Amino acid sequence: MRFIKIYSFLLLLIASFIQAQEHPNLILTKKGVQEIRQQLGKVPLFDASLADIKAEVDAEILKPIIVPIPKDMAGGFTHEQHKKNYLILQKAGVLYQILNEEKYAIYVRDVLLAYARMYPTLPIHPQERSYSRGKLFWQCLNDANWLVYVSQAYDCVYDFLSKKERNLLEKELFKPFAKFLSVESPQFFNRIHNHSTWGNVAVGMIGLVMNDKTYIDYGLNGLKEDGIAPDARDNDGGLIKKPGQKTGYLANLDDPFSPDGYYTEGPYYQRYAMYPFMIFAEALHNTKPEMKIFDYKNGVLLKSVYALLNLTNSEGEFFPLNDGQKGMSYYSRELVSAVNIAYYFGNQDPSLLSIAKKQDRVSLDNAGLQVAMAIRDAKEKPFVKKSLLLTDGSDGKQGSVGIIRSKKDNNEFTLVMKNTSQGLSHGHYDKMSYSFYNNANEILQDYGLARFVNIEQKNGGGYLKENKTFAKQTIAHNTLVQDEVSHFGGDFETGSKYFSELIYVDYSNPDFQIISAKEVNAYPNTEFQRTMIVLNVPSFENPILLDVLDVKSNAKHQYDLPYYYNGQILSTSFKYDSARSVEPLGTKNGYQHLWREATGLAKADNIQLTWMHNNQFHSLTAVTSTDDEIILARIGANDPEFNLRKDPTLIIRKKDTHNTTYISTTETHGSYSYVTESAKNAYSSIKKIEEIYNDTTYIGIKITDKSDKSTVLLFTKNNDTTKEHQLTIDKAVYKWTGNSIIKY
Amino acid sequence: MRFIKIYSFLLLLIASFIQAQEHPNLILTKKGVQEIRQQLGKVPLFDASLADIKAEVDAEILKPIIVPIPKDMAGGFTHEQHKKNYLILQKAGVLYQILNEEKYAIYVRDVLLAYARMYPTLPIHPQERSYSRGKLFWQCLNDANWLVYVSQAYDCVYDFLSKKERNLLEKELFKPFAKFLSVESPQFFNRIHNHSTWGNVAVGMIGLVMNDKTYIDYGLNGLKEDGIAPDARDNDGGLIKKPGQKTGYLANLDDPFSPDGYYTEGPYYQRYAMYPFMIFAEALHNTKPEMKIFDYKNGVLLKSVYALLNLTNSEGEFFPLNDGQKGMSYYSRELVSAVNIAYYFGNQDPSLLSIAKKQDRVSLDNAGLQVAMAIRDAKEKPFVKKSLLLTDGSDGKQGSVGIIRSKKDNNEFTLVMKNTSQGLSHGHYDKMSYSFYNNANEILQDYGLARFVNIEQKNGGGYLKENKTFAKQTIAHNTLVQDEVSHFGGDFETGSKYFSELIYVDYSNPDFQIISAKEVNAYPNTEFQRTMIVLNVPSFENPILLDVLDVKSNAKHQYDLPYYYNGQILSTSFKYDSARSVEPLGTKNGYQHLWREATGLAKADNIQLTWMHNNQFHSLTAVTSTDDEIILARIGANDPEFNLRKDPTLIIRKKDTHNTTYISTTETHGSYSYVTESAKNAYSSIKKIEEIYNDTTYIGIKITDKSDKSTVLLFTKNNDTTKEHQLTIDKAVYKWTGNSIIKY
Repeated sequence: MRFIKIYSFLLLLIASFIQAQEHPNLILTKKGVQEIRQQLGKVPLFDASLADIKAEVDAEILKPIIVPIPKDMAGGFTHEQHKKNYLILQKAGVLYQILNEEKYAIYVRDVLLAYARMYPTLPIHPQERSYSRGKLFWQCLNDANWLVYVSQAYDCVYDFLSKKERNLLEKELFKPFAKFLSVESPQFFNRIHNHSTWGNVAVGMIGLVMNDKTYIDYGLNGLKEDGIAPDARDNDGGLIKKPGQKTGYLANLDDPFSPDGYYTEGPYYQRYAMYPFMIFAEALHNTKPEMKIFDYKNGVLLKSVYALLNLTNSEGEFFPLNDGQKGMSYYSRELVSAVNIAYYFGNQDPSLLSIAKKQDRVSLDNAGLQVAMAIRDAKEKPFVKKSLLLTDGSDGKQGSVGIIRSKKDNNEFTLVMKNTSQGLSHGHYDKMSYSFYNNANEILQDYGLARFVNIEQKNGGGYLKENKTFAKQTIAHNTLVQDEVSHFGGDFETGSKYFSELIYVDYSNPDFQIISAKEVNAYPNTEFQRTMIVLNVPSFENPILLDVLDVKSNAKHQYDLPYYYNGQILSTSFKYDSARSVEPLGTKNGYQHLWREATGLAKADNIQLTWMHNNQFHSLTAVTSTDDEIILARIGANDPEFNLRKDPTLIIRKKDTHNTTYISTTETHGSYSYVTESAKNAYSSIKKIEEIYNDTTYIGIKITDKSDKSTVLLFTKNNDTTKEHQLTIDKAVYKWTGNSIIKY
Repeated sequence: MRFIKIYSFLLLLIASFIQAQEHPNLILTKKGVQEIRQQLGKVPLFDASLADIKAEVDAEILKPIIVPIPKDMAGGFTHEQHKKNYLILQKAGVLYQILNEEKYAIYVRDVLLAYARMYPTLPIHPQERSYSRGKLFWQCLNDANWLVYVSQAYDCVYDFLSKKERNLLEKELFKPFAKFLSVESPQFFNRIHNHSTWGNVAVGMIGLVMNDKTYIDYGLNGLKEDGIAPDARDNDGGLIKKPGQKTGYLANLDDPFSPDGYYTEGPYYQRYAMYPFMIFAEALHNTKPEMKIFDYKNGVLLKSVYALLNLTNSEGEFFPLNDGQKGMSYYSRELVSAVNIAYYFGNQDPSLLSIAKKQDRVSLDNAGLQVAMAIRDAKEKPFVKKSLLLTDGSDGKQGSVGIIRSKKDNNEFTLVMKNTSQGLSHGHYDKMSYSFYNNANEILQDYGLARFVNIEQKNGGGYLKENKTFAKQTIAHNTLVQDEVSHFGGDFETGSKYFSELIYVDYSNPDFQIISAKEVNAYPNTEFQRTMIVLNVPSFENPILLDVLDVKSNAKHQYDLPYYYNGQILSTSFKYDSARSVEPLGTKNGYQHLWREATGLAKADNIQLTWMHNNQFHSLTAVTSTDDEIILARIGANDPEFNLRKDPTLIIRKKDTHNTTYISTTETHGSYSYVTESAKNAYSSIKKIEEIYNDTTYIGIKITDKSDKSTVLLFTKNNDTTKEHQLTIDKAVYKWTGNSIIKY
């Protein structure tokens, strides 16, 4: 026993001689720190960011060090304290380097020693909820967060510490920590998942600081052996690992990122993973420049920053595709460092500076310094978000997200159409769903996730059961539901095999932007093609959305198409019966969470709904069959803990239907002021919408406005841009090339 | 026939000789205009306001003049056009005077002539909804609005017009218009009501311009004879006229205003009436300075401006006491002129300038000029809203509104306790109800009115039937309901006889502000006293609200006390059953509009509810009996047109109860960020609340916080500030003078 201890000590001694590299070398470098010190007091935004962090850390280090025995879920005391500790440690380390004041290094050392005393005594975290429980936190993911931040702190104070202290820390804390996250938690570490990215980076970062090749290799390439059962699953029901799946940081760059930089889980998790992805890249750039990590996969890391910035509304908030908590935005700390790194290690794109300026802080490293200097020197240009297609899948061939933006005066209308693959365990069953915005206002909303992240009262801040039973279900989204069953029967494996197919996209005419996509796998023997157009024509005050959903099936079905309008109803064109007592709309697949507030029949060729939200008016006009059922429903049934928002929806239900086409427009018009109490343009401008043509090749739509002016739109069902098309409709002859034509 | 015409012409000629007064003399004066012209270009805020209005009018006068045949309800085309016309006419008249450019006078003349051509042909407005239909608009009220504005335009261009033009306008338009509003519409004109104020001022103003003593007298003193039936009512069910009621402008100043300047209908209508009240006062000051109108009733007009400014939240939005549309604020045009007039004709109070500066515009008259000059000269001081008591009733002896404000850091907590009289036809049946704010966030809300003012789709912009069936009912408010019946049985006459009695109020200790009031008429043989305290003690992050509602009755009843919390539930301390299908809570008195979402039993001495709203946490803790029923309900049942907001409430129901005391605290704590996803202080600090004493003279409350620190509050039931009080509770002896004591 004693012999083993001495032997390990000797090995550690040898290891520490091998670590002949200089420190810091991870995020900060010796040379970089020199440069930062020279610029202090000369770069306002850097100085302000430094002052903020100094004030925060100075206040913190006056308090007693608290390293509590882990106990609580997210939101609880021990969770929040350990989280605070790692954030402060990283900052204190940076302050030590930049300000060269020993008190920060002493603080880091003392906290680390406190952790080193406790860590060897820790069992697995007592909370049993996670598929991969941590030690400091209820899940390994948060332990990995801790190590990603703390490895930076360790790097910063490395030279300040005595060898003995370093040896102690590595032996009692960092190596067991890295081992626990990797070889002892393969189901967490050896996956393609944002969790694993954190794990890989945590282990890789501490490996770089310790110059430990094993952990560096684990971080980059995963574990060779993991013993993960082929059907193992995480808490969200996601499969842990596909057979033959590569793992590690590089595999997590290869696989979930498309060549356009879209991350298949969606922007909310892309944002979350951005920090480890980018910070490890920075560390690899500094320690292993020969890897040229920023060129990896044609520069996918930098592309992913642009993808993320484009996946935001006018307030910088991410579109809540798949599991996404609304309100998360590019003001998050992850995006501050991502934007700084993309500027510094990319092409010093001045448009990134305008985002950094809005963020109003920079990271305290050389990337942040460069950004702050460029802002000081007024180099920034506007970051203009344009209409965009972001492919999904590692090869860019597994669907896509289409974003159409159309600006008029101060109103920017944005369509987000989701034609992606499943999106791993955070995916929703909502093929070809969409949301529609005016600036940051949701006109037709995507629900997002059912979770209150880090609010302990709500299931410890974790996912709520309604996330699975409602938020992920198809009926929770603005897309087609057949026979009240979710896409792919709500089955994760089936859903993960398929993706919607982009037929064509054309943004060349800013007043007529079109995306057409097709889904043939969501329901058996059924295909539906959705063509969405954002149209800016003189008949309308603002750009409007035209949605054409063409459904073909070999049998009769019931179809539901929900419109999650956001706001309060002003008027409907159709009559309905309001329920005296309200019942859930169904018993499963999300329907059990919708109250049926009212039901009517269309009884006309068109129905119209006008509602008000945030001082604007909106109207939905839809083509209907006279016997279409119109259901006014509201989220919130079977929600005993009040976990869901009580938001409304209108559902057009078609029963016993073979083939059908859902056609609708969504307009934003006018405004209301509560101060002047004047209502401007409170009515839809649409008199009628008609389907004037529909065969195997073409669809034709006619929109007639209130002044009887008509707009005719024709488009192909297939991508056929070369041929000259010709159609005669109602004696008018239309000839065009390209996929679509508009006449008004 | 011809003789009569010639005779009338001669009479008009004579009349026009009598009008030897100079013009303008109403709002602008010849001398005042000179002064304004001299200052042009030297007073930034005045110049900016002038430029805005010039731009607006210049754009408008390029368009064709549109004076349509009246047809539509509010929000409809003809309504909005006539409204736009009067606003533009007033502004064009002012521009003519200030800029001395004829094009404005020509525009005013041409529009007025167009009205003069149409007016004699007009029948009563075709929309039949009003108790007092207008000609240009669906109700006389809007016609009166028109004349209040247009009489100013006429005054401004009076000297520009030829005598023939003036004679024509007066004969065909103004005199018939004034006659229609007065002698032909006595049910509108001869009341104590904001409607009549507009009517009185319209007729009085045009009387002043025309120097027509009859109409001036009608305006000031009402009609001598009106033939109004003693039981005549308006659309809101309000009695038109009490027997012997004085009428006219002066009576409308005497009666609904309290000596403190509180207007009995509530701030929303006070704001609406403010414009005619103040503008006519300005006109009377200019034309009849001997009246000393601003000194009338001890300067009630100026006091009313201060009362209104104090009846706002931190965003300047009026508290929605009685019928009030939320969002209306001191940024409205009525308050711009009111604040300017109060500054100019009052004591040049520099704190008014800070409001004017926020309004960022001034009226284009000498009051506005003075305000803008003072702002230019940096004379403004902050307008500090303090805790306040505003008496109600013409003599100040018919109840009151109590406002308690308690500020900590950037959070200002505001209690608005309504212990008023009925408030005429716009009153709600909510004796001793309250709302509670943090800045502009409603923690516990007052519903306000059920109406979408000027939104045509919603009942022509008029009151919705749910205003009567829900918004006015007691159960829609945070106050006591006995046996599911509204106060006074919801009977207007009965309610109008009574008011709540203020027992005492004490704001002397900013950390312990208290109001106590009593209601003995709302329910037969039942009295309830409500004592509300805003408490700032070290146990709590923020000031908290303590509410003690002490009920005594001679028989057993069911009691309901609703808490209209605003936001989403995070947790409850009590168990409840959620309904699988939801039913209305009752069948009448507003209960038919509440869905019963869940029901539980308190089963404990305290219940607690924590919810989140606008990134803050709030907790309600209430003392309960174990068999108290807790109902979680939501507004929206029996609401077939979706007229109501779907807001939640918690109701504590006590059945078969003789006497009881409802005791609760409301805390705001912590915060949540959607960007950092960190939840701070998400839990209530309260462990327990107890009633430790309650006899005929005293009530004692003990609040124990989570760290087991206790706060004991004792207060008297009667106003007894002189005697030395002594109580022994649980062996502790408390001695004090004054109505209350706090020990912690």
